[in-house]
Amino acid sequence: MTPGRPVPPPLALHIPRADEISPDTATDETAGLPEGRTEGRTEGRLAAARGAVSSTSGLVPLTVARRAPKADDVEIAIEFCGLCHSDVHATRGEWGTQNYPLVPGHEIVGRVSRVGSDVDDFAPGDLVGVGCMVDSCRECESCLDGLEQYCERGLTGTYGAKDARNGDAVTQGGYASSVVVDRRYVLRVPENLDPAAVAPLLCAGITTFSPLRHFGVEEGDVVGVVGLGGLGHMAVKLAKAMGAEVKVFTTSESKISAALELGADSVILSRDEDAMAAANRSIDLIIDTVAAPHDLNPFFRTLRRDGALFQLGLPSDAMPPVNPGALIRRRIAYAGSLIGGIAETQEMLDFCAEHGVVSDVEIVRADQLNDAYDRMVAGDVKYRFVLDTTTLQAPSERADA
Amino acid sequence: MTPGRPVPPPLALHIPRADEISPDTATDETAGLPEGRTEGRTEGRLAAARGAVSSTSGLVPLTVARRAPKADDVEIAIEFCGLCHSDVHATRGEWGTQNYPLVPGHEIVGRVSRVGSDVDDFAPGDLVGVGCMVDSCRECESCLDGLEQYCERGLTGTYGAKDARNGDAVTQGGYASSVVVDRRYVLRVPENLDPAAVAPLLCAGITTFSPLRHFGVEEGDVVGVVGLGGLGHMAVKLAKAMGAEVKVFTTSESKISAALELGADSVILSRDEDAMAAANRSIDLIIDTVAAPHDLNPFFRTLRRDGALFQLGLPSDAMPPVNPGALIRRRIAYAGSLIGGIAETQEMLDFCAEHGVVSDVEIVRADQLNDAYDRMVAGDVKYRFVLDTTTLQAPSERADA
Repeated sequence: MTPGRPVPPPLALHIPRADEISPDTATDETAGLPEGRTEGRTEGRLAAARGAVSSTSGLVPLTVARRAPKADDVEIAIEFCGLCHSDVHATRGEWGTQNYPLVPGHEIVGRVSRVGSDVDDFAPGDLVGVGCMVDSCRECESCLDGLEQYCERGLTGTYGAKDARNGDAVTQGGYASSVVVDRRYVLRVPENLDPAAVAPLLCAGITTFSPLRHFGVEEGDVVGVVGLGGLGHMAVKLAKAMGAEVKVFTTSESKISAALELGADSVILSRDEDAMAAANRSIDLIIDTVAAPHDLNPFFRTLRRDGALFQLGLPSDAMPPVNPGALIRRRIAYAGSLIGGIAETQEMLDFCAEHGVVSDVEIVRADQLNDAYDRMVAGDVKYRFVLDTTTLQAPSERADA
Repeated sequence: MTPGRPVPPPLALHIPRADEISPDTATDETAGLPEGRTEGRTEGRLAAARGAVSSTSGLVPLTVARRAPKADDVEIAIEFCGLCHSDVHATRGEWGTQNYPLVPGHEIVGRVSRVGSDVDDFAPGDLVGVGCMVDSCRECESCLDGLEQYCERGLTGTYGAKDARNGDAVTQGGYASSVVVDRRYVLRVPENLDPAAVAPLLCAGITTFSPLRHFGVEEGDVVGVVGLGGLGHMAVKLAKAMGAEVKVFTTSESKISAALELGADSVILSRDEDAMAAANRSIDLIIDTVAAPHDLNPFFRTLRRDGALFQLGLPSDAMPPVNPGALIRRRIAYAGSLIGGIAETQEMLDFCAEHGVVSDVEIVRADQLNDAYDRMVAGDVKYRFVLDTTTLQAPSERADA
């Protein structure tokens, strides 16, 4: 297929706005420019996609109108997109009101197909990635610090967000054949890694890498990981690659061998009070990836002085109360962390290339997405599903590519 | 009076052990040594004190046997001792089983009366202080790091603790005419400060100074202080002296003027939702001194990215749940902190001397202690009571000093 190429909408629920695809912008004005370089008015393109049209629709075939690349834009022919639990919550409306249709996906890997006139750092054919955000204010202290994820005016999510620099159009994510993103939010993906297995690094990877780096994990530190799903398995691999000793906390004996296979040095059954007592004051940093309410106090007791527990998952129900005595007695911090900044995400990808770290993935076709969601909710995945976007189009459509 | 001098026990409930005061150790063998320097076997002394004999006794006159100074010991004639809320909880048995009789007090200021043979850093007449601990293991990582308050084997509290290096005798605190403490846990008190107003620095001062320093507060930072009692008023003064802008949170309009008089730049009524919303994302560090259960989530919203809230008070009932989303969205840390290390406490005293910072105190006599406790519980003190230890003895006893 030719990713990003206009395709007939299988179900044209997402109608492009007049100013996105209008007769006078439908002419490709790139003649005379280097191949793939756009200048002035160029055509937008339609992308084959899967998304939800209501909270109960499941994922259905859709067509997304992608804007013509503006001067700073990079058009990407998507090859793989990871499936994140957030996608399930968002498409099912579990995080509040959504604008439907909604195409999820924020673990995007693909190759550049076209670039805007001012883009010098990416060229057609480059392997690139897009994570959880496609814009931010670029002016606040967090943006200037390279921590765009904490943008004080709010980051622009890769899907379901109003895109202020593009007429408040609602962003549509990576379960699609193409996407157009400002170059500032595009990552360079190392060529030595399996691109499908790289996709989850853009969310699950950076979400765990950022607190590990922020805490300053180094050789000899002891890192605890609570929960062994998409985020947890990345935390184990990344912490090991940083030289840490890794202890995995799990509630299930059946996960012990899986944790050890991922590289964990030891596994602690968190419901075993003796095992928890034996781990008392043994850990520097805990990465807690569990998104269901759970009592943190037993985990605080396993931390050393000046230890920290970073919670990354956001339960929909209230957590049990924290006992401040546990924090006071060892100057422990209970902290949160949200994905990572763009520069840090690039650093993470380069780190993974150097250490050969990728996600453990199971590749799915577009017609398996709904089943995959059900399996994610049931915890039946090791450890991340990744959509092969070549399966988005009907065979008859792909045949003419 | 001659502090530390043997006095007849007004109520000899605390009987010295035979090996503390025995016929063969009752001879002062300091002849030939410099004045105040002890060598070999010297006599222990009795101290006039006030303490509890049961959880309901209130504070009554007692006599405490102080050990003869060992080679590393400093004997201190106590002049002032601050009254801490912990003293109320401990003497009333509100923190679990206590060994009675119990003499509280861990904000001690006085002058050295005698030193052991190996003490070179203190001499008789020196103005010194003792805070919340009189020993620790001296071997664990925290002790070696100068953070003895987090001693992994447990610090030896200034009162009510088993003193492992002294036959497991239970330590008795500073509501007394004298105390004997290993030189490693004795602080040098600057002569340019009012010694009565220095006493509360040894607990309330260092407890707030330590997290301010640990967070790295500097000129231009914004510090929030929750609660305006003994700890809170010190937090305001210390943060101001560090160059921070200080915002005080209070539930009571009546405290606004008091907060401003202490040096706060502004006061926020924490029950006023509009005022709290206006403070959104404006503070770098919050020092929370409230020891009753309270909802922290509104305070987290006032923190900037990478902000922290240090909770210093330990409520006896559970705190309301923390919303991890508040921590995640701005990488905020909810942390605890316990007093401070010995070196840090000395640094705090020197800092206070340089900046002219002391506690606001109301001096009380020994016969006012029980009323003072009731007033502390009622919050009726600005901001710390300090016992004048010259009032511990009956006039007839003092007359013969």
